[in-house]
Amino acid sequence: MEIWYTEKLELEKGRAVSYRVTKTLDSIQSPFQKIDVFETQSFGRMFTLDGVTMVTNKDEHSYHEMIAHIPMMSHPNPESVLVIGGGDGGTVREVLKHPSVKEVVLCEIDKAVVDISYQYFPECADAMKDKRVIHHYDDGAKFARENKGRFDVILVDSSDPVGPAEVLFKEPFYRDMASALKPTGIIATQAESFWYHGDVISSLFEFIPKIFPEYGYYYTTIPTYPSGIIGFTFLSNAIDPYSVTPDISRLPKGLKYYSPEIHKAAFVLPEFAKAYIKRKR
Amino acid sequence: MEIWYTEKLELEKGRAVSYRVTKTLDSIQSPFQKIDVFETQSFGRMFTLDGVTMVTNKDEHSYHEMIAHIPMMSHPNPESVLVIGGGDGGTVREVLKHPSVKEVVLCEIDKAVVDISYQYFPECADAMKDKRVIHHYDDGAKFARENKGRFDVILVDSSDPVGPAEVLFKEPFYRDMASALKPTGIIATQAESFWYHGDVISSLFEFIPKIFPEYGYYYTTIPTYPSGIIGFTFLSNAIDPYSVTPDISRLPKGLKYYSPEIHKAAFVLPEFAKAYIKRKR
Repeated sequence: MEIWYTEKLELEKGRAVSYRVTKTLDSIQSPFQKIDVFETQSFGRMFTLDGVTMVTNKDEHSYHEMIAHIPMMSHPNPESVLVIGGGDGGTVREVLKHPSVKEVVLCEIDKAVVDISYQYFPECADAMKDKRVIHHYDDGAKFARENKGRFDVILVDSSDPVGPAEVLFKEPFYRDMASALKPTGIIATQAESFWYHGDVISSLFEFIPKIFPEYGYYYTTIPTYPSGIIGFTFLSNAIDPYSVTPDISRLPKGLKYYSPEIHKAAFVLPEFAKAYIKRKR
Repeated sequence: MEIWYTEKLELEKGRAVSYRVTKTLDSIQSPFQKIDVFETQSFGRMFTLDGVTMVTNKDEHSYHEMIAHIPMMSHPNPESVLVIGGGDGGTVREVLKHPSVKEVVLCEIDKAVVDISYQYFPECADAMKDKRVIHHYDDGAKFARENKGRFDVILVDSSDPVGPAEVLFKEPFYRDMASALKPTGIIATQAESFWYHGDVISSLFEFIPKIFPEYGYYYTTIPTYPSGIIGFTFLSNAIDPYSVTPDISRLPKGLKYYSPEIHKAAFVLPEFAKAYIKRKR
């Protein structure tokens, strides 16, 4: 008998991606969501939240490098970083590759995600043991409101706008984040796929220009997310994402996806996708 | 009862992409392959060859624009074009958007694909009725050998290297194509995904540098191909793909995916993918 896991969120739209499971490693119900851990035939270990793929060994580097290094390489000297969500630790791992970093606050609402990752994804999770990492298990919006002007970079490594992450796609949360940023700070947020979620992206760019004078949208390829790509907003009071030239001397060694050339290319969208994103110029 | 179509080729690797079928429109066995046509819930009409998705209404523009306009915009004056495979007509449609074109030879081994496309995909197929299009139902390698020095651009719009298209991924075919090219000509060939088919890409770049002094690899995003991306080789005796600056005055109007900026960005690969592709510099 073969066991296959099929991603749930897309099913009602008549689309499915499925993976053959060679071993079921864990399945727990946290106060916030259902967490499953599988060994898969082709992608190594995988964990899902409420039936939606979050991390696989094979391609997590694409997501984690691109959510982290685009803003980190765009900021001249990122010292204080807030990661909202991201309890697997992969984003924290990438942030810590920048020697300028003095503190990383991980604000994850669900401690069970962190515990699962320590157990099954040490290559992501072990970075969270670094002494520069402050663990905070709380609502990200509330934490941002209580820490005005503290951060150089804020990364929102969230799940989709259904369930616990829904508020992370609404205007009040973006205003809370703006208040937690230093004047030259940068925010990057997980912002879905231009192939499948033009409506979500358009709704973000309805309010983003009201809050941030500088903004953009970039993307990366990742086969275990439904359309094979995932995008991110880039938000700032001071730094225009389209004018950044990454400083090669600060490039972390050993990256698998990010390069200064990929940095520039990631902001270039197909013609049809430009309609979802407001641009200043 | 819901009917779902699941792509076959990936199943043995423990991966599957599936689409909800709202109507089965046709299913025929040609001398070369099985052809199925579906109406799907989210991607409009779709046709498959031997259980592998070829074309859907929703995203075919990405593939067809990118296989065609990258070489067409890289050539200073493309007049004579050969399309091998591509019986749906989408690639011919894009080629004909360039007013310099005087002839397009469509060399498709399976006439049944052309007939199916005329019936169900007129937005792709109707371009094949243009008087500049010469229909030729034959083996592409044989046709290339018999037409030395005839073409400015050759596009290989093939299925995967299994079944009838297997020979299109081998060195003899590339030598035949080289012989059919004018001295300043350019070839682009469908060349799989850097996420899933690094072995196929590497095997192409074992022999490509022996035949072509200039070469490169570029890609596009497309959700109904298994990993969400598909790549292409770019081959030439004279034109370095990495030095091309597309002439904006020659840009066809109304494109949905291609732009001169996407042209440059499409050649920028993730760090891990560079290992599959030999580059001169």
